Amino acid sequence: MSDAAVVSAALLIVGNEILSGRTHDKNIPYIAEKLGDAGIRLREVRVVPDVEEEVVDAVNALRSRYTYLFTTGGIGPTHDDITAECVAKAFGRALIQHPEAYRRLEKHYENSDLEFNAMRQRMANTPEGADLIDNPISTAPGFVVENVHVMAGVPKIMQAMLQNVIPMLTGGAVMLSRTVISDLGEGTVAAGLQEVQSAFPAIDIGSYPNFTSGGFRNALVLRGTDPDVLEEAVKAVSALIVSLGGTPIDGDAA
Amino acid sequence: MSDAAVVSAALLIVGNEILSGRTHDKNIPYIAEKLGDAGIRLREVRVVPDVEEEVVDAVNALRSRYTYLFTTGGIGPTHDDITAECVAKAFGRALIQHPEAYRRLEKHYENSDLEFNAMRQRMANTPEGADLIDNPISTAPGFVVENVHVMAGVPKIMQAMLQNVIPMLTGGAVMLSRTVISDLGEGTVAAGLQEVQSAFPAIDIGSYPNFTSGGFRNALVLRGTDPDVLEEAVKAVSALIVSLGGTPIDGDAA
Repeated sequence: MSDAAVVSAALLIVGNEILSGRTHDKNIPYIAEKLGDAGIRLREVRVVPDVEEEVVDAVNALRSRYTYLFTTGGIGPTHDDITAECVAKAFGRALIQHPEAYRRLEKHYENSDLEFNAMRQRMANTPEGADLIDNPISTAPGFVVENVHVMAGVPKIMQAMLQNVIPMLTGGAVMLSRTVISDLGEGTVAAGLQEVQSAFPAIDIGSYPNFTSGGFRNALVLRGTDPDVLEEAVKAVSALIVSLGGTPIDGDAA
Repeated sequence: MSDAAVVSAALLIVGNEILSGRTHDKNIPYIAEKLGDAGIRLREVRVVPDVEEEVVDAVNALRSRYTYLFTTGGIGPTHDDITAECVAKAFGRALIQHPEAYRRLEKHYENSDLEFNAMRQRMANTPEGADLIDNPISTAPGFVVENVHVMAGVPKIMQAMLQNVIPMLTGGAVMLSRTVISDLGEGTVAAGLQEVQSAFPAIDIGSYPNFTSGGFRNALVLRGTDPDVLEEAVKAVSALIVSLGGTPIDGDAA
């Protein structure tokens, strides 16, 4: 499939807690789906530790390669929150106290019984020239520098931030997806599936076996941007399954 | 914390289905924990699409940088299963039909009502000189080339493979973890926490706020290899929480 017109994205997760296994990431599928709905294809995810050099290197590698880069994690008030500093370094920009971010946080803490102390003031720091991403949950904003969108790691906050970011992005053609399920083994359909893939180069066909308590089933997932071509490919895959003695099930209706 | 003696690992997930958001990864936390128990620290995760150039580049970037590289996904019989070819290319080795892998698969299909066809025979392909990783679930083996361990993506199969791999690895000091929970805000503990971090450079301290139906709580996670130093750091963090009017809760006993 030609990627000429693809609007692409990478996700950088700054997260010792993911790498230790303590926290199970919930952000990848959410971000993948929301970007997909906006016509932006998630093409790479990296998880790196809270180590300055690693974050800076990953930001620079990914921002130059994809249309958009999203980061999650590392924008709180504690010593291990280093994403703002790292993004500033990656861009060679100064880290500044963003006046509007400071104002929002100052007001937020005035209305609470918590002190707006020096560590909390760190949450107003952004690279020079950054635009803020609103945080309706806990005030401390994310920010945007060029094509890099810096968001919180806590899923509820990240989701609220992403909702504010999406309308600002320019997407391409939306990737449509269809799923055909059967109980035929992968190796049984593989040769015919390869032929269907060759006949429909604009469609991306994946085969995902699954062992559940209900037994084996295989999901054939077809993705593409043209609904008519996609429908033709779905018909070809369904015909293949029937020709091999199986019963195709519409995985999207299930 | 000095990383001089660290035995490190990276995980490469070959997976369009993760990047589309369709499949929620379950392998990262499992692999992170099992490697951690073996004294091997997961330091980076990458998710890349089923595209040869991307997989080859990621294999080469990660295998040269970390003690071990583990890959998941892309070793089935269908056209989108390209990991064996990619790893062969990354090492500049020929892709061969591995005799023992072929023998196991041939026997497996003899005992089934499924045909050992050309596409299923692809699952016997490995880079030249690879050692096999046993697959007690569905026979088709993983393989090892130098420091690269190629495993299935289906969690149940990956887990069985990893169990066979772990005893072959040489780990370093096991990273121990302790968690202290309180309802103090991150910004309330942040300054004192930074002081504790400075006093215990060998301990890695992370702060992870969490909003649940039970309200706000913050988990302070302390990690290090020396149990005595770790205990001292836990005491310092607990004392900090008490000094700020909070009640530290042992997150490991919860």
